[in-house]
Amino acid sequence: MRAITIPEPGGPEALVWSEVPDPEPGPGEVVVDVRASAVNRADLLQRQGHYPPPPGASAYPGLECAGVIGALGPDVTGWRVGQEVCALLAGGGYAERVAVPAGQLLPVPAGVDPVDAAALPEVACTVWSNVVRLAGLGAGETLLVHGGGSGIGTFAIQLGAALGATVVATARKTKHRVLRELGAAHTVDYREQDFVEEVRRVTEGRGADVILDIMGASYLGRNVAALATGGRLVVIGMQGGRKGELDLGALLAKRGTVAATALRSRPVAEKAEIVRGVREQVWPLIEAGRIRPIVDRRLPMSRAAEAHQLCETSEHVGKVLLTTG
Amino acid sequence: MRAITIPEPGGPEALVWSEVPDPEPGPGEVVVDVRASAVNRADLLQRQGHYPPPPGASAYPGLECAGVIGALGPDVTGWRVGQEVCALLAGGGYAERVAVPAGQLLPVPAGVDPVDAAALPEVACTVWSNVVRLAGLGAGETLLVHGGGSGIGTFAIQLGAALGATVVATARKTKHRVLRELGAAHTVDYREQDFVEEVRRVTEGRGADVILDIMGASYLGRNVAALATGGRLVVIGMQGGRKGELDLGALLAKRGTVAATALRSRPVAEKAEIVRGVREQVWPLIEAGRIRPIVDRRLPMSRAAEAHQLCETSEHVGKVLLTTG
Repeated sequence: MRAITIPEPGGPEALVWSEVPDPEPGPGEVVVDVRASAVNRADLLQRQGHYPPPPGASAYPGLECAGVIGALGPDVTGWRVGQEVCALLAGGGYAERVAVPAGQLLPVPAGVDPVDAAALPEVACTVWSNVVRLAGLGAGETLLVHGGGSGIGTFAIQLGAALGATVVATARKTKHRVLRELGAAHTVDYREQDFVEEVRRVTEGRGADVILDIMGASYLGRNVAALATGGRLVVIGMQGGRKGELDLGALLAKRGTVAATALRSRPVAEKAEIVRGVREQVWPLIEAGRIRPIVDRRLPMSRAAEAHQLCETSEHVGKVLLTTG
Repeated sequence: MRAITIPEPGGPEALVWSEVPDPEPGPGEVVVDVRASAVNRADLLQRQGHYPPPPGASAYPGLECAGVIGALGPDVTGWRVGQEVCALLAGGGYAERVAVPAGQLLPVPAGVDPVDAAALPEVACTVWSNVVRLAGLGAGETLLVHGGGSGIGTFAIQLGAALGATVVATARKTKHRVLRELGAAHTVDYREQDFVEEVRRVTEGRGADVILDIMGASYLGRNVAALATGGRLVVIGMQGGRKGELDLGALLAKRGTVAATALRSRPVAEKAEIVRGVREQVWPLIEAGRIRPIVDRRLPMSRAAEAHQLCETSEHVGKVLLTTG
């Protein structure tokens, strides 16, 4: 088969569409014939050599895919060859075939295009595990989503709105209209506006109950300032650095929480638990049309370099898919 | 009645045993005839002028008491005059009588001396709400307790051990024997030993699942370093300052959480919810003899200054009670 390999870490040109050995399904695994994968920020870091795959994971990038089950390994029940699926991966999605633990498979939701389904697993699992399972977002609460135009952002806006929360999203101005259509009640132009002030204004001084953050250190102080009493800040990216000053006095006055998480490094059993929760709680919202995959564009895997270039500009909205077809 | 007033903030001598008007029970409140209150660190801060009582609270210090119900206000059910109780207070415990919302009352647990019961409400509510309700400590997990010899510390050690956790406590060397008797599996002399190393050593490199911290900024980096994967750090005191550097990368690698909370500032309804949880989950452990009030000594309220002096040295173990008798 062919897969994107990274002979030498570097710029987008480091991605090489190469002939490689086919994967074999181990016990409890299936092999998916990949129709599409999607670009995640972690792939850009991996390409640059900053985010090595966890032990046991495929050396190729790609944290999710959609396709058709091509083979079952030993001890797999509940799935059959030929079934259309999408999957959360520890790596290896940028390929024509990938082996994945059966617990990380999801059916293609009814009504979703089987290629577009590649845009769902990573964002659904990341957003649900952080915003719902960890932070416990409830109806009537306010969710602040940073980077509202990203794959994660567009999904978080839709999920938050579907759960009955008021969603505030930060993004560059050009993306605001789309984000409001997706369910953001308020959009903040982070280049021109102070999100702390804006959140306070639209919540009548109360602040955000949950914040989903991708900036890390550079936003830490302002995120704590934007929290409501009992608020939960969840950091899932560190685009603004990793070390920041935390004012514990401010956090204590609000009885607030700061969590930082990642999905890829979790053990297989935890991923399966998250996938199960997503299937139970998020898939019905997709099948009811309350949430849809947001696909900026599709490019063939052989043009993965171009897809990475695009994602580095952050001018896209939602996901950039890489197709094998 | 008489109460401890603070005409001018300052040292222990600022506490004056004075004649003041009796409290009246408002709707949903009872008046407790106080047998004893207990000294909490917040009282020392209040005496120094650093921790003003929240709006609506008594101006006198004292966050807990034990005594007998002397009067019921309107709309109180389930309690009767003459009943022996202890109570979580927003203030006013250093007095002969105090008005308190009925939701903050607890019966004196069977087998506990009705004066010693004054040592329970604050620590039981603080430790349970943080270690159990917020951090979700489970059997088989490791709990690190800083300041193991304090009222909070001695209670957290006992509760952690009763819940089947392995408890590691930091304290000065002279207190280690007592803390081990209370259930600490390991004690760390924070003056001579690095608690991060010690926690790693006794958990075979895994770290602490839950940390109950009273130091704040000065321990923040080392507390994050001592966390296990999925670990929860709960900061309830800032004796080492409020602003510290948080390494979000280290926290993210562990999928960890940092929370900071306080009990006194919570609304009455939340306090009642915590008191209810304590009564259901902690009181049976006390009545079964698994947890007991740890009383360093009793002093009459008129000698409150002496009690504060003692607490400022941190040479006591457990609680210093102030009695009216």
